[in-house]
Amino acid sequence: MTDQRMLTGDRPTGKLHLGHYVGSIANRIRLQHQYETWLIIADLHMLTTKNARADIDEISANARQMVLDSLAAGIEPERATFYLQSAIPEIGELNTLFQNLITVPRLERIPSLKDMARDADKETEMPYGLLGYPVLQAADILCVKAHTVPVGKDNHAHVEVTREIARRFNHLYGETFPIPELITSEVSSLVGTDGQAKASKSLDNVIYLSDSAEEVRRKVSAMYTDPNRVRADIPGTVEGNPVFVYHDSFNDNPAEVADLKERYRAGTVGDVEVKDTLAAAINRFLDPVRERRAAFEAQPGLVDQIIVEGTERTRREVQQVVFEVRKAMGLAGAFNQLRRKAERAQKKAASQS
Amino acid sequence: MTDQRMLTGDRPTGKLHLGHYVGSIANRIRLQHQYETWLIIADLHMLTTKNARADIDEISANARQMVLDSLAAGIEPERATFYLQSAIPEIGELNTLFQNLITVPRLERIPSLKDMARDADKETEMPYGLLGYPVLQAADILCVKAHTVPVGKDNHAHVEVTREIARRFNHLYGETFPIPELITSEVSSLVGTDGQAKASKSLDNVIYLSDSAEEVRRKVSAMYTDPNRVRADIPGTVEGNPVFVYHDSFNDNPAEVADLKERYRAGTVGDVEVKDTLAAAINRFLDPVRERRAAFEAQPGLVDQIIVEGTERTRREVQQVVFEVRKAMGLAGAFNQLRRKAERAQKKAASQS
Repeated sequence: MTDQRMLTGDRPTGKLHLGHYVGSIANRIRLQHQYETWLIIADLHMLTTKNARADIDEISANARQMVLDSLAAGIEPERATFYLQSAIPEIGELNTLFQNLITVPRLERIPSLKDMARDADKETEMPYGLLGYPVLQAADILCVKAHTVPVGKDNHAHVEVTREIARRFNHLYGETFPIPELITSEVSSLVGTDGQAKASKSLDNVIYLSDSAEEVRRKVSAMYTDPNRVRADIPGTVEGNPVFVYHDSFNDNPAEVADLKERYRAGTVGDVEVKDTLAAAINRFLDPVRERRAAFEAQPGLVDQIIVEGTERTRREVQQVVFEVRKAMGLAGAFNQLRRKAERAQKKAASQS
Repeated sequence: MTDQRMLTGDRPTGKLHLGHYVGSIANRIRLQHQYETWLIIADLHMLTTKNARADIDEISANARQMVLDSLAAGIEPERATFYLQSAIPEIGELNTLFQNLITVPRLERIPSLKDMARDADKETEMPYGLLGYPVLQAADILCVKAHTVPVGKDNHAHVEVTREIARRFNHLYGETFPIPELITSEVSSLVGTDGQAKASKSLDNVIYLSDSAEEVRRKVSAMYTDPNRVRADIPGTVEGNPVFVYHDSFNDNPAEVADLKERYRAGTVGDVEVKDTLAAAINRFLDPVRERRAAFEAQPGLVDQIIVEGTERTRREVQQVVFEVRKAMGLAGAFNQLRRKAERAQKKAASQS
């Protein structure tokens, strides 16, 4: 454990699934032992595409669910600080100060922002805040002076903006921020149970970390496999086959997986056996997750407390950083010079009367 | 005097000149009797085009100069609240929240933003914050719930953005903001002393409110007039002729102006007389400004105190508005729900131990 800080996080989308685990949570669980870890619940980022009152009213429940899932998966509250972005007003302040350190054309060159606009049916009417999504991320990352940001491939270009903003700030106002390094996770997405490229809540093709053993069995038994294999004695394709992708990711018995693959290719194993062993493997993987979840749930309010205390702790850190930022930029000085002159005059007036 | 609020202001550019007086200050002096008046020193807006440390280091001196000039011109500290924008961090927070209520194409359709980018040599690299200039203005205007905004023609489109953001906010989150009305000043710019279309500090073609009587005489004697009139007995053109534009704006003796115009057209008056009477008229206009300036300067620190106290008073107002905004949006509730659950659990745990 170094004194290096890592920051990452998600918009408060609610329950986490195995795709999240493979894409980011597994990485975080590993990295929390190497870094002082900060996990942001990025509700201000959610507002860039979803800002109806009904969406905002779901933030607290979704945040609670997401944090509980993270803790159940193995994030340790002693190692990681969770915080709710919107409860730290100084992040909005930093965002406003950073907006002059990056150009519109630079942001318009980031393809993922256009994808996000399209996904939110806002392709021709991109909200101004959505174009600035990476600037707000810079505020998140730099507000705790993070040294490192683990990211999926989609987010590389975003964190590059943070690096540019940090460099530009340091150049204009003196060394203030570390230039955060990127850590890319090896696997960045998991195929859906239906064979679609991405496991996603909205496609309803996911296994949740909170699914019961029975739900896991039901979902696995309905999983998409090789469509050409209409009988168990026809040789099948293993590569890209969802059941084997999941076996590779979650089965802790590699010999069993190797044997199943061999027999699948030879046409000597049925889908039922492949799926039963997969369901059992996923349940073996989820059992300790379920135990930790039960332990957290046995203390009602504990997850809320973890978020609230994390947010308060983070806010104190951020206030310190904003203080430094204002001082480095000279903005603190601008007001303080006026204040000192006013105070001196008042003192003088008081001493003369 | 109603309880309606008016907000307007300027970036902290330093000394004010007669162009400022005609374009905005005269209007403000009149309106301060009708509205509770707020005058912003918009240094965060300055950062959208000038954000070097050297520029920021000039903010306090420029703010002091600008406020002193405004007070000397006739803004009354009992009627108007001056405040330094960057010293109210909640404005940055509101700016971040408002950014999702307006689209990029909407902002890109505002021609004055392109002009500002061009003037700052940033035409091909518009800072993201400059595209959002009108969003930050919306934060300024709505942060004190202003009912009315006096603007020059350049700024119409900007304040229209504020109106759209206020409507959109009210629609999404319930009635929170008045939709501010625009008051357009009749004359929005003054010709330069050199005959160029605009009086501007950078063109060095201005008469400052702080110029001495001697400086006024010198500048007026060098003013551009009708270039075709090479001798005093040649008939001259009055329309658009800077000396007569200034006579019309500042000479309190309309009979004298009418007589000079008539004789100028007839070729029976020399430039010297036209200019001497103009210098005298401007000095008559500036004499009470000089007296008020001397009175403020006799109390060192008073201007600073006016800005500091105005900023503190404004900040208290803004904090109240931001509290309402967070409540209306549901963001206050998001964190409070977590906090209440955490507190209940802690109380319960305490009562059981």
